[in-house]
Amino acid sequence: MDERLRSQLDFALEIDKEKNIFRRTHLTNNGRNENDAEHAWHMAIMAYLLREYSNEQIDIAKVMLMCLIHDIVEIDAGDTYAYDENGLKTQKEREKKAKERIFSILPPDQKEELAALFDEFEEYKTPESKFAHAMDNLQPILLNSSNNGADWRAHKVTAEQVYRRQSKTKLGSEKLFEVVDEIIKKNIRENNLPEG
Amino acid sequence: MDERLRSQLDFALEIDKEKNIFRRTHLTNNGRNENDAEHAWHMAIMAYLLREYSNEQIDIAKVMLMCLIHDIVEIDAGDTYAYDENGLKTQKEREKKAKERIFSILPPDQKEELAALFDEFEEYKTPESKFAHAMDNLQPILLNSSNNGADWRAHKVTAEQVYRRQSKTKLGSEKLFEVVDEIIKKNIRENNLPEG
Repeated sequence: MDERLRSQLDFALEIDKEKNIFRRTHLTNNGRNENDAEHAWHMAIMAYLLREYSNEQIDIAKVMLMCLIHDIVEIDAGDTYAYDENGLKTQKEREKKAKERIFSILPPDQKEELAALFDEFEEYKTPESKFAHAMDNLQPILLNSSNNGADWRAHKVTAEQVYRRQSKTKLGSEKLFEVVDEIIKKNIRENNLPEG
Repeated sequence: MDERLRSQLDFALEIDKEKNIFRRTHLTNNGRNENDAEHAWHMAIMAYLLREYSNEQIDIAKVMLMCLIHDIVEIDAGDTYAYDENGLKTQKEREKKAKERIFSILPPDQKEELAALFDEFEEYKTPESKFAHAMDNLQPILLNSSNNGADWRAHKVTAEQVYRRQSKTKLGSEKLFEVVDEIIKKNIRENNLPEG
């Protein structure tokens, strides 16, 4: 087998580990914790089906690929909960090292391509990145709200914290931010999410 | 919220259940059983990275979407193991009913689109379908071989059965069939896969 193909298959096997990186979010019907691979799969399908709500024109294939690969770095860096203030301080550095190690398994051209796509996602500037982030925000809030906000209650998250994070959903989709806003307000009314 | 958006979000929540459909395949490092959502995520990334080995020109965005959605019907129909002769007899009928129920949650145009994409995958005729199937075959054999064929041994699968299934990998990619052939031969040599 030639070296290029061998590297590609080694990478394919390496990313299997993403299925063991568990998030704080729980599956619907008060299920178990969700893992990163499942989350990425869910985001990519949602991106495709909800693309009509993007504020700007997007290359949907690029968004889907971005969704699929955006958490690969967590194989080394671990999942950082959106409301973990300490974890967030070291997240960038941990993820940078992980990106270098993991994407280097690929042939150089594909390493460069995937690392650039990951960086684009992180930079939050392009229409594709903004819409992919909107999915990254919308997907867990849908699951959590279906469980009556159990994840927020478990981690004592406030409405203000959720609004701070979700305000950026607007950058990708004004329309989907309306959904998020409706969900937050419902959870405040039902005492799943304390104000302030 | 308008009806279209409500249907799309209902569908997004419904497919969360795919994360609870477990396959016979185990994760690398002799991990737990893999579920359908993880398998689909893995296939879609592999399709993108290995697209240069497709026998024919393919629309890679279509292949990726096909990979992502091809097992949604298993939410109702369950996973049918590739070597379960009895299960295979009723699979088509079970999946047809599931397709109707689950995709009907979507707005009509998206129901039609996803159902057609699923049918295209099943029909095994277009270049995209053939390459998506090659991923559906290659992904589990990579995992299983990394575990020294534990899944084959557990289910008393023979080399002949694996060749019968994997011979169709060739339709999507001659090159990737060479990889599969190498993996099967290695597992025969190592007594993980009995001949005949």
